[in-house]
Amino acid sequence: MKIAVFAGDGIGAEVVAEAVRVLEVLDLPGMELIEGDVGGAAWRKHGHPLPQQTIDIAHAADAILFGSVGDFDCDHLERALRPEQAILGLRKELTLFANLRPATVFKGLEDLTSLRPEVAREIDLLIVRELNGDVYFGEKGTRTLEDGRRQGWDMMSYAEDEVRRIAHVAFRAAQGRSGKLCSVDKANVLETSQLWRDVVIEVAAEYPDVELSHMYVDNAAMQLVKNPGQFDVVVTGNLFGDILSDQASMCVGSIGLLASASLGETQTQYGTKGLYEPIHGSAPDIAGQGKANPMAQILSAAMMLRHSFGLEDQAVRIEAAVASALADGIKGGDLGGSAGTRAIGDAVVSRL
Amino acid sequence: MKIAVFAGDGIGAEVVAEAVRVLEVLDLPGMELIEGDVGGAAWRKHGHPLPQQTIDIAHAADAILFGSVGDFDCDHLERALRPEQAILGLRKELTLFANLRPATVFKGLEDLTSLRPEVAREIDLLIVRELNGDVYFGEKGTRTLEDGRRQGWDMMSYAEDEVRRIAHVAFRAAQGRSGKLCSVDKANVLETSQLWRDVVIEVAAEYPDVELSHMYVDNAAMQLVKNPGQFDVVVTGNLFGDILSDQASMCVGSIGLLASASLGETQTQYGTKGLYEPIHGSAPDIAGQGKANPMAQILSAAMMLRHSFGLEDQAVRIEAAVASALADGIKGGDLGGSAGTRAIGDAVVSRL
Ligand SMILES: CC(C)[C@H](C(=O)O)[C@@H](O)C(=O)O
Ligand SMILES: CC(C)[C@H](C(=O)O)[C@@H](O)C(=O)O
Repeated sequence: MKIAVFAGDGIGAEVVAEAVRVLEVLDLPGMELIEGDVGGAAWRKHGHPLPQQTIDIAHAADAILFGSVGDFDCDHLERALRPEQAILGLRKELTLFANLRPATVFKGLEDLTSLRPEVAREIDLLIVRELNGDVYFGEKGTRTLEDGRRQGWDMMSYAEDEVRRIAHVAFRAAQGRSGKLCSVDKANVLETSQLWRDVVIEVAAEYPDVELSHMYVDNAAMQLVKNPGQFDVVVTGNLFGDILSDQASMCVGSIGLLASASLGETQTQYGTKGLYEPIHGSAPDIAGQGKANPMAQILSAAMMLRHSFGLEDQAVRIEAAVASALADGIKGGDLGGSAGTRAIGDAVVSRL
Repeated sequence: MKIAVFAGDGIGAEVVAEAVRVLEVLDLPGMELIEGDVGGAAWRKHGHPLPQQTIDIAHAADAILFGSVGDFDCDHLERALRPEQAILGLRKELTLFANLRPATVFKGLEDLTSLRPEVAREIDLLIVRELNGDVYFGEKGTRTLEDGRRQGWDMMSYAEDEVRRIAHVAFRAAQGRSGKLCSVDKANVLETSQLWRDVVIEVAAEYPDVELSHMYVDNAAMQLVKNPGQFDVVVTGNLFGDILSDQASMCVGSIGLLASASLGETQTQYGTKGLYEPIHGSAPDIAGQGKANPMAQILSAAMMLRHSFGLEDQAVRIEAAVASALADGIKGGDLGGSAGTRAIGDAVVSRL
């Protein structure tokens, strides 16, 4: 069980350290951790946010536990050298095309969201975001038009196989949940979306037990405010998924508790190879102070055990330990509490 | 004062009728109303959602009062014939590149939003959305790749002059408000956004009194949930603006009260030529029943008097009449009341 550990920038190192402690306490037979540099930290050491040796570690691993990237000192760099290229590069390099972003309001934490408690309480959704296509990875550039004007351009596209594979992930997820799938696009304006919609409808024929609906992205952004409880599984492209999944996370309120999985098609002897990271960023303002809440990172490790190692029991154990710590009032500053990084790690470890 | 009146589909005719009544009561000298067909209604009559005679009326007019378009019977049509092409076509045809979408919570209506009242109460923002460029109007199509796969594609782009003109609108709007402008983009991924950001920064030099900030669109979607009160004027591209302005509208809750203006550079003898429409759609489920709330349409007419005819006083009169009707408990079904379309129109008219 080879786990690549890429802590990255800001609070990454601190919170990843607690997740690693949790994994070590579980004493999983044959677990091997291999550290690698990513983001601004990698750029400082190697001149690149995603050095070749990191890519090699990622390829050799069965799963990747990812911290966060983001570093103001890199703001002046050309885009190819900025920290976020590490995560974009890993998604592409490992063909991690399926981003699973569950959003659920934790009992007792309804106060943390800006939504009314009765609205927030109903949130229990999963956003399945495509991660390898769309306007993210198309051709792009800046050019000077014939008349001398500068123009920035990016090609948005989806090919049918790209849509099909993410649609299958989403339909299967819907089967495992309430059997409802909502596909979000902008088919009234975009050809990319029209193709997306056509292919999702084709794939739906293989899942007669799933009830499929379609929604325009502007309406989805409205409905996520009005009544997020109406959604179960949502599938959408890379760009819309970026926006809607962050919006949904904020509807939950407790960003410091939300984890995500990015999966590909590679099957290892244990499960599906994937990358696991918290939703929150590198939070440079509190980095190095022992204040960051490591729960989302710990829950990312739980997702890893579930999806990449088939260790559902251990995943549930971690999740229960986090829930129990929360129930006992162990909360980080982000949740209105005062527990530090290490204390929260201790609390989870002691409950395992 | 030539006003083109395009009622469109669904509840459009009913709510536009009340807005027209309001305009007529004001007894503005030289006001001339010219009706035209748009949307599904136009397609039924002329086989096209935006027939040439409608375009001609739009060109001849000083302003356009637009109802709404959207008709389920057109779902099977090719995109070029669907109702929404009417609004997209008018924006392009008249170079209406600046969409102004104010969002403010009306006093006493904080209950209508899903946000906590203390969060909602702080909302007072203006989204300035670019309407003539971006992935909306670039080249697009579906093609079969060499290996036989279907692909949908859309070109996203902005040229510097397109960004510059909308930036000026936004900076001037910020000068007239709190002096804060937030530009939203996805410059960490998109070249289009990088050019956008570069040009907005260039234009900022002409507005030293405006405090400019930048935010990624995913973060903006989060911040609009977490703390929408932090925003004053927001400027963004066509696609992000579509999503964020609808999200912001829903944060306000009372969609039946929100109006919008789409302006170009054409100056008539009275003011800036523009198109005015409510945020709400054609609501086919309640069309023809006299239930629709015409307030957003009436407030659109007020915006029209302000921007296209320089009649600030009359605009304020209408807005005050609507506010007074609301304060007296005259509310449509969408606001939890029971007043019908006509009764609300009466209430506003009697207060003028
Ligand atoms: C850092 C950025 C490039 C990235 C994205 O847009 O995908 C991030 O927002 C995310 O959602 O993981
Ligand atoms: C109907 C549709 C094409 C349109 C858009 O996306 O611009 C609408 O959502 C809007 O915001 O006016």
